[in-house]
Amino acid sequence: MTSLAVVPGDGIGPEVTREALRVLETIAPAYDLTFTTTEYDLGARRYHASGETLPDAVLEEIRGHDAILLGAVGDPSVPSGVLERGLLLRLRFELDHYVNLRPSKLFTGVPSPLRDPGEIDFVVVREGTEGPYVGNGGALRVGTPHEIATEVSVNTAFGVERVVRDAFARAAARPRKKLTLVHKNNVLVHAGHLWSRTVDRVAQEFPDIAVDYLHVDAATIFLATDPARFDVVVTDNLFGDIITDLAAAITGGIGLAASGNVNPDHTAPSMFEPVHGSAPDIAGQSKADPTAAILSTVLLLDHLGHADAAHDVQQAAEADIAERGSAPRRTEEVGEAIAARVAEGVRVG
Amino acid sequence: MTSLAVVPGDGIGPEVTREALRVLETIAPAYDLTFTTTEYDLGARRYHASGETLPDAVLEEIRGHDAILLGAVGDPSVPSGVLERGLLLRLRFELDHYVNLRPSKLFTGVPSPLRDPGEIDFVVVREGTEGPYVGNGGALRVGTPHEIATEVSVNTAFGVERVVRDAFARAAARPRKKLTLVHKNNVLVHAGHLWSRTVDRVAQEFPDIAVDYLHVDAATIFLATDPARFDVVVTDNLFGDIITDLAAAITGGIGLAASGNVNPDHTAPSMFEPVHGSAPDIAGQSKADPTAAILSTVLLLDHLGHADAAHDVQQAAEADIAERGSAPRRTEEVGEAIAARVAEGVRVG
Ligand SMILES: CC(C)[C@H](C(=O)O)[C@@H](O)C(=O)O
Ligand SMILES: CC(C)[C@H](C(=O)O)[C@@H](O)C(=O)O
Repeated sequence: MTSLAVVPGDGIGPEVTREALRVLETIAPAYDLTFTTTEYDLGARRYHASGETLPDAVLEEIRGHDAILLGAVGDPSVPSGVLERGLLLRLRFELDHYVNLRPSKLFTGVPSPLRDPGEIDFVVVREGTEGPYVGNGGALRVGTPHEIATEVSVNTAFGVERVVRDAFARAAARPRKKLTLVHKNNVLVHAGHLWSRTVDRVAQEFPDIAVDYLHVDAATIFLATDPARFDVVVTDNLFGDIITDLAAAITGGIGLAASGNVNPDHTAPSMFEPVHGSAPDIAGQSKADPTAAILSTVLLLDHLGHADAAHDVQQAAEADIAERGSAPRRTEEVGEAIAARVAEGVRVG
Repeated sequence: MTSLAVVPGDGIGPEVTREALRVLETIAPAYDLTFTTTEYDLGARRYHASGETLPDAVLEEIRGHDAILLGAVGDPSVPSGVLERGLLLRLRFELDHYVNLRPSKLFTGVPSPLRDPGEIDFVVVREGTEGPYVGNGGALRVGTPHEIATEVSVNTAFGVERVVRDAFARAAARPRKKLTLVHKNNVLVHAGHLWSRTVDRVAQEFPDIAVDYLHVDAATIFLATDPARFDVVVTDNLFGDIITDLAAAITGGIGLAASGNVNPDHTAPSMFEPVHGSAPDIAGQSKADPTAAILSTVLLLDHLGHADAAHDVQQAAEADIAERGSAPRRTEEVGEAIAARVAEGVRVG
């Protein structure tokens, strides 16, 4: 039995989460899986009602689950940063999601904004618990002409090495066996050199992985001009945030981009969520594309050791993507279509 | 008489600088300008010969000039960060280049990697003296499993307000009158909110400027999918570094991207340089495209109050770009062609 903590969240979050769960329910019997779900009301609504973002007791309850499925959090009515830092990032940090996994693939049938995208199929291993995201900043004399605001990026050998090792292991499991470190070690010399030295050292244990390095600014150029060059990218929390949105854009948009906030050591539940936000402008209208949420369940299944089930869902989603036209479909139509393919594929297989 | 400190630098730096100077020499007589140049040997060669990056005495000499023309610095033989921090960033910081100006325009005749780029014509006003670039980082227990490396982003009301004001003034002088703040204020809440509050406040003095805000990750999406939406972008030092390389990529590559490190108060010389690096792989072969260096002289002329001369060079460069085919031309051919157009245009005008 697999227990899922479900955080539908705000805006389109509940709608896309529903479809992700539909697909999980559909795949379950074929692989003898049973999912139990506990829904947690977290996000803007709860914040407005109670001022709470993530109460300690709720965090502890969530911690007792096997995995977390998250829709989207955030609403313009909440000051910027409150839910991001208080809920989303708190979950990532408290549950030690040090591998923020973001695959980018240009699926058959999906138009890229690039004229000549080539075969895009890479995965970004974004560090999830350090870097400029640690929240070690502060401000003095706020609102005066003498205000000073700082943000501290914290990087440790421990934190960098574990995510770098994870990235090498993923590169070793892929056919192209390539790993690119993305940082800015010519300016952020302390953090950057820690990253570079760590990659160089771990690389010695992986002699058949081809390793290269790109400054983050140059990486964006290659994402626009030659994204097929990438296989596995390992990078820090902030650079990973930036380049994965760009990666989503060139592969057809964040409507298709899945992510896993992974604790590879399984010391706490990992969390799976679409890269897109809560899109309040289209919320409640069945206009949201649930594909990214559904693809996030692929990462969830894989993380929980159900690689075959993950494969089936991925195939079903890709088949749907390949055959969907440009006519808009309702959120549940997409979910039903992919679930139907899952059911079919499972019956045949 | 205008005194230029010329820093040709490394790799293709000297080649492209030569062409930029050729164009300046050509435009000069028509506008009664006289340029005197002092060349400074700074970069990898000097570093290897003497260990020096930017001796204080040289900095003081450079300070006595009206402007600086820089080619490119950097070489793989020098540890990453040494020349960047010790020379390039030191010049930007010591000479208070708080406006790092980076226009992005998709010129007629230039292919974009985007399928449907639209009319790209915006300028990024990148802060140049604060943020994560300040070098306020450090490391402990380097090389041990207990290493910790930090990078501190420092942001002040003084520093943010002056660059924001500059950006608003530039937006006011452009037909579309739009300004976009790019930051990450939902995560880097202290720095981000200082930026947001400052933009909101200054905006009240510019009621006819339309202002919006984008997280840096979302900004990269728009640069890939709808770059024509941008007019003036104001952003911090690191985000500006990243998005201007992407902006260069979508407008045909860093071979065409100019930049000005501007001290708008004229308390020290401003510095003009192509966005590209030293490209050691093609150095000395006359393969480098000097267009970005030449377009940087447009920013130089403009900054020194010679708007008409700047306009002429811009027109000449754009005309050359529009008519150059895809056949490779030697560095000096491009310089000569643009200089010839300048001479011609000047004669006609
Ligand atoms: C919402 C925000 C805090 C988050 C991040 O910056 O990590 C988002 O952009 C993402 O990429 O998941
Ligand atoms: C070389 C490097 C220090 C520099 C920067 O990061 O500013 C470059 O990338 C640029 O954009 O001018």
